[in-house]
Amino acid sequence: MPGDMPRHADLMERARRVIPGGMYGHQSTARLPASFPQFFSRAEGARMWDADGREFIDYMCGYGPNLFGYGFAKVEAAVDAQRALGDSMTGPGPVMVELAEAMVATVAHADWAMFCKNGTDATSMALLVARAHRGRRKIVLARDTYHGAAAWSTPRPGGVLPEDRAHLIYCRYNDPQSLEDAVREAGDDLAGICVTPFRHETFRHQHLPELEFARLARELCDRHDALLILDEVRAGFRLARDCSWHDLGVEPDLSCWGKAIANGHPLSALLGSERAREAAQKPYLTGSFWFSAVPMAAAVATLKEIRESDYLERTIRTGTALRDGLQQQAASHGFSLRQTGPVQMPQILFEEDDDFRLGYAWVEGALKRGIYLHPFHNMFICAALTEADVRETLEKTDLAFADLRRDAPGLQGPPPQIAATVAAMAGDRR
Amino acid sequence: MPGDMPRHADLMERARRVIPGGMYGHQSTARLPASFPQFFSRAEGARMWDADGREFIDYMCGYGPNLFGYGFAKVEAAVDAQRALGDSMTGPGPVMVELAEAMVATVAHADWAMFCKNGTDATSMALLVARAHRGRRKIVLARDTYHGAAAWSTPRPGGVLPEDRAHLIYCRYNDPQSLEDAVREAGDDLAGICVTPFRHETFRHQHLPELEFARLARELCDRHDALLILDEVRAGFRLARDCSWHDLGVEPDLSCWGKAIANGHPLSALLGSERAREAAQKPYLTGSFWFSAVPMAAAVATLKEIRESDYLERTIRTGTALRDGLQQQAASHGFSLRQTGPVQMPQILFEEDDDFRLGYAWVEGALKRGIYLHPFHNMFICAALTEADVRETLEKTDLAFADLRRDAPGLQGPPPQIAATVAAMAGDRR
Repeated sequence: MPGDMPRHADLMERARRVIPGGMYGHQSTARLPASFPQFFSRAEGARMWDADGREFIDYMCGYGPNLFGYGFAKVEAAVDAQRALGDSMTGPGPVMVELAEAMVATVAHADWAMFCKNGTDATSMALLVARAHRGRRKIVLARDTYHGAAAWSTPRPGGVLPEDRAHLIYCRYNDPQSLEDAVREAGDDLAGICVTPFRHETFRHQHLPELEFARLARELCDRHDALLILDEVRAGFRLARDCSWHDLGVEPDLSCWGKAIANGHPLSALLGSERAREAAQKPYLTGSFWFSAVPMAAAVATLKEIRESDYLERTIRTGTALRDGLQQQAASHGFSLRQTGPVQMPQILFEEDDDFRLGYAWVEGALKRGIYLHPFHNMFICAALTEADVRETLEKTDLAFADLRRDAPGLQGPPPQIAATVAAMAGDRR
Repeated sequence: MPGDMPRHADLMERARRVIPGGMYGHQSTARLPASFPQFFSRAEGARMWDADGREFIDYMCGYGPNLFGYGFAKVEAAVDAQRALGDSMTGPGPVMVELAEAMVATVAHADWAMFCKNGTDATSMALLVARAHRGRRKIVLARDTYHGAAAWSTPRPGGVLPEDRAHLIYCRYNDPQSLEDAVREAGDDLAGICVTPFRHETFRHQHLPELEFARLARELCDRHDALLILDEVRAGFRLARDCSWHDLGVEPDLSCWGKAIANGHPLSALLGSERAREAAQKPYLTGSFWFSAVPMAAAVATLKEIRESDYLERTIRTGTALRDGLQQQAASHGFSLRQTGPVQMPQILFEEDDDFRLGYAWVEGALKRGIYLHPFHNMFICAALTEADVRETLEKTDLAFADLRRDAPGLQGPPPQIAATVAAMAGDRR
């Protein structure tokens, strides 16, 4: 950072002039504590630096893409090699075939692969393929689940028409009766059931899938000749070296992938079983950069590391150390955390903090000491995070808890930037 | 290429197993002559090499992204510099602000910018913003115009529901009466008019915009407080260093960009005027890789080259040399070409070739001599194409015309892979 120039504040001011609201989308800090930086100048391994040069251990991993660490050498070497050949050409590179084969070899249910750019591309494509399968219309999904930001899925109403969701039927995640009811409502018009492998919504506790729910989803799709779609965009390869439900013995017909599959390079994918192959050829789906070779080369290298390294065991180990450490630490300061979901994708909320005042104050205390935690979104543990990083994190969070113990009595809640959300939830953080 | 292995045929066979149909989307060669390669191993400047090592002068430019040449040094240097810092981080880099400022400084109507990945993202976002503007539903567009591959726009019916297009009203491009009628049909529910800057559809002659049509679109949007959306995804910065209608004196409220704005790196954008800023903040729109810093750094370097180099004049010069040369050459062989659209985005069809048998045979003759032309899609001239490349092209196309003169009497048409399209058009190539 040159001299004392408050570069970050200047950037925010400039951004307000040329970007609506100063920023938009999931990386907007509008609903985060005011001290959270909007712009980052650098990232490496498990760390990042904001535009004023402040260093953070990053527990967001770019909201998911960073699986092995920012700038992970083996993936970047594959990128270098492919860049020297070509990227966005008049057709795909041979690497597209290599990647499709690697995906099919890695994910048990998959017999084929199609690549795209956004997670939303993959989930939207899955809906079209499911509808093309038997020419039916109804898709059953879990209420309040994030499946992307297209008109059919985006969580805010601005610009969305009722017709965009005309044939979506909502059930409750992990509730077999509710799923059966939704399928009954679809009648003979059921195209598919689309669910995330576990429940990972903002502002809410996470929930692992109930075996009965997962099996019932599969059974209902079989019974009605509909397609089971697993939306792995956020969780893919974070829980398993296969679909997240593989160990449950439940295989989907279609699975949607994105985020981490190329360790930060822009790529998403729809994988499918033989049963869905014909339907996958019916819709016309494409994008200017869907066939670019460089992100595919990054994905081939990422998949190789997924198969050959102990990244999964390591992220579970560091994630467990973080969870256990925080739980004890919170108790020692008189607080109670509810940490939910897989340890490598933790959601960390305070018990008895329905208006998030404790959570917001605590992450601010951690942030000012160089630990970037999120107050309402699940986090991610990357394989570059070391046990020493976790120890450093816990040293800093201990200080943040001490601050919180001192400041809690004076806190007014909810934080104004999330007051409307908190009011709408009315304490329901199930 | 190692030894005599027919690598390309092997790739095609492997692809058929792990990719539905062997390939999909706009870069699928399923409707091209059988000799056209599906996979490319390398690209540089204005040339590319297929998986068997055959070299081509490429007139498709990756279907648009390649503006200055594959691997253009100044853009790649910016990519190198940003990659050393960070790409897909937990927030955007400062380069996002720099790029938004550069876009606003370059495009006259734009007061703000939002970035995304696919052209489809930008056009879909434009529809949501237009609908959010006054809470209205109807969008007027030109029939048979390609605006992307989402359910509301994709040209094939597979998986698409009538509701996906419930509030779209179609007019005829360049037909003022038809535009007025469509706006009248929208009544007090008109959200916007969405058009391409010129008519560039596959299998059809291209048409430059009529001034009366463009002015009327602007006037109708003003009269009804609706938003005029210019879809520049394919044509952006190919015709002007601003919106393509700038020289007509017609400015949109929203413009959609993609393809060439980062010279092949994955980025698209929605630009807007002050009038649309508030509406742009209403929908929730985002994507995992929309805020990645590397493609933005590429776009900043691309915009600099757009403003500071004579790329536009050069592509017009080489495009003119190609058009003039082909026209004379065709005549000398007893054929008549109809070459339409801007010379730097040429559509080259044969007169009296409604079933495309002449066009298909001619591009095959050129392809086997190392010239990659397209039989039904508009092409692109990149700034790396030299006058020597055009001379080399014309030498080869002359031989292709000679072959065609010899073979034409025996040709049966239409080519089987486009027979259905040709039948559906019934000779209408307007």
